[in-house]
Amino acid sequence: MNNTVDVREVGLRDGLQLVKTVLSTATKLDWIQQQVNCGFTNIEVTSFLPPVVIPQFADAPDVLAGSLKIPSLHAAVLVPNLKWGLTALDHGAQKINFVLSVSEAHNKANVRRSTDQSLAEFQQLVTERNHRGLKNSVEMAVSLATTFGCSLQGVVEERQVLNVAEQVLTNGIEEINMADTVGYGNPIQVKRIFRDILSIAGDTPVAAHFHDTRGMGLANVVAAVEAGVRRFDASLGGLGGCPFAKGASGNIATEDCVYLLENLGLATSINIDTLLATRKCLDGWLPNEPLEGKLLKAGQARTFSKV
Amino acid sequence: MNNTVDVREVGLRDGLQLVKTVLSTATKLDWIQQQVNCGFTNIEVTSFLPPVVIPQFADAPDVLAGSLKIPSLHAAVLVPNLKWGLTALDHGAQKINFVLSVSEAHNKANVRRSTDQSLAEFQQLVTERNHRGLKNSVEMAVSLATTFGCSLQGVVEERQVLNVAEQVLTNGIEEINMADTVGYGNPIQVKRIFRDILSIAGDTPVAAHFHDTRGMGLANVVAAVEAGVRRFDASLGGLGGCPFAKGASGNIATEDCVYLLENLGLATSINIDTLLATRKCLDGWLPNEPLEGKLLKAGQARTFSKV
Repeated sequence: MNNTVDVREVGLRDGLQLVKTVLSTATKLDWIQQQVNCGFTNIEVTSFLPPVVIPQFADAPDVLAGSLKIPSLHAAVLVPNLKWGLTALDHGAQKINFVLSVSEAHNKANVRRSTDQSLAEFQQLVTERNHRGLKNSVEMAVSLATTFGCSLQGVVEERQVLNVAEQVLTNGIEEINMADTVGYGNPIQVKRIFRDILSIAGDTPVAAHFHDTRGMGLANVVAAVEAGVRRFDASLGGLGGCPFAKGASGNIATEDCVYLLENLGLATSINIDTLLATRKCLDGWLPNEPLEGKLLKAGQARTFSKV
Repeated sequence: MNNTVDVREVGLRDGLQLVKTVLSTATKLDWIQQQVNCGFTNIEVTSFLPPVVIPQFADAPDVLAGSLKIPSLHAAVLVPNLKWGLTALDHGAQKINFVLSVSEAHNKANVRRSTDQSLAEFQQLVTERNHRGLKNSVEMAVSLATTFGCSLQGVVEERQVLNVAEQVLTNGIEEINMADTVGYGNPIQVKRIFRDILSIAGDTPVAAHFHDTRGMGLANVVAAVEAGVRRFDASLGGLGGCPFAKGASGNIATEDCVYLLENLGLATSINIDTLLATRKCLDGWLPNEPLEGKLLKAGQARTFSKV
């Protein structure tokens, strides 16, 4: 089994998307640089979408431009449709993460399209990327939201998850990311679905995106690791949240996730001391946001040592 | 595999032991009754120890007396040594949980004895229970603190854990409880140690006591379930804490633990709606205590249904 694992920071995207305080571009770039200094190489730095929908991301071109100047960083952006995917291509994103929901109800609420329409737009975006001769320089990833259930629709059938996954995998992409958008997943379900996805993904890397809405986030990480997943999204301080569950906690906290993975004997290449220092900065950047994560308060165990 | 699991509330003992606000006996008994109404049958209702050490438990005899009047409740108490174990016997405790630390340093700090002295006192307490003809009516349990590491001593060798466990198991007891007192355990270690303990425990039930100090509490529950454990301690609202890590979170939250176990397909016999209502009462009883636990804020998933 592969002993290395990649934790990708999504706090600047999933974390910030519900935060009312709009961070300056300079602060965002400071945050990104600090996480690069911790050892992160893959960061979702922003989202390309209509600024009127999420003013926090109105500076997406500038954040991306600044990120592209940081050596050793592979800058990813999230996009909700073909139009904004093309914009991200125009601005030189190194990785484009196209989000679509397996749940029809959630996809319509989130991006105002049927899942089939989103699938078709994703295919067009991959084709356009290839036509531009960017197949080897721009990664195309898809995030399948509501893989583990939907707060609008309820149950999401696993055969539908596999069906959508099979369709996106035919496009020749660089990653498929299974997202527990509303925190409905549990470890048994997570292990089963990831084993199924890994069995059909072939050489395409499979990633996991968990929320800790009901406290099972890190248990789900362990289940996914056991299934064979080695790529995890996480958000510094657990920043983020679900618009359909006011007050509920959001993404799994990056610092707790890294610490867990290292405790499992996996190598993240992240300096945890530096990461906790960055986590303290986040308190200053967002003084009014309640942050999650236990490691900062408790400190690392005396018995813990990175292998 | 056994499909039922017993979650035992320890909020009135482990949860309250660091809380400065001394709850009235009536409030404690209200709390206990409410959890019985939720479906809990095993509750650690108090601790017998010198009131000068923990004033919160000065009313231990009254809390126990009130608990003994509640039908369907099996009332457990924690004791730190022989003297207080005998006092608990005198007061009619239905289960006595004798705590001793595998870590010599922690045992000395916690109960001012060497681990061997505590082992000898535990043996005397079991003998005295038997001499009184109470072998079939009073359960004797031992909690092995610092099983997964110690904040004072550091590493606790697993052969020492097994060595101490073997010694307590020779006494003919009703439970051995492995406790991650300072939140150092991780899922791999947890699964390995519980498999080893279960292999030597024979017919003696094995329980798990986890803290969520570094966010791994529920992941450790899953690991213990996979090893075969079906008894878990938990504290309502995650009440509790570590005196050696100020501000760090404490026990795993009962409500999140029950919800996780039910999501794993195990039957807890707990009514989660009633449990969340009790959890809300705790806010009122302890308005100045920061409580943990995610389920109350997020609510149960739409897709969740008790089997």
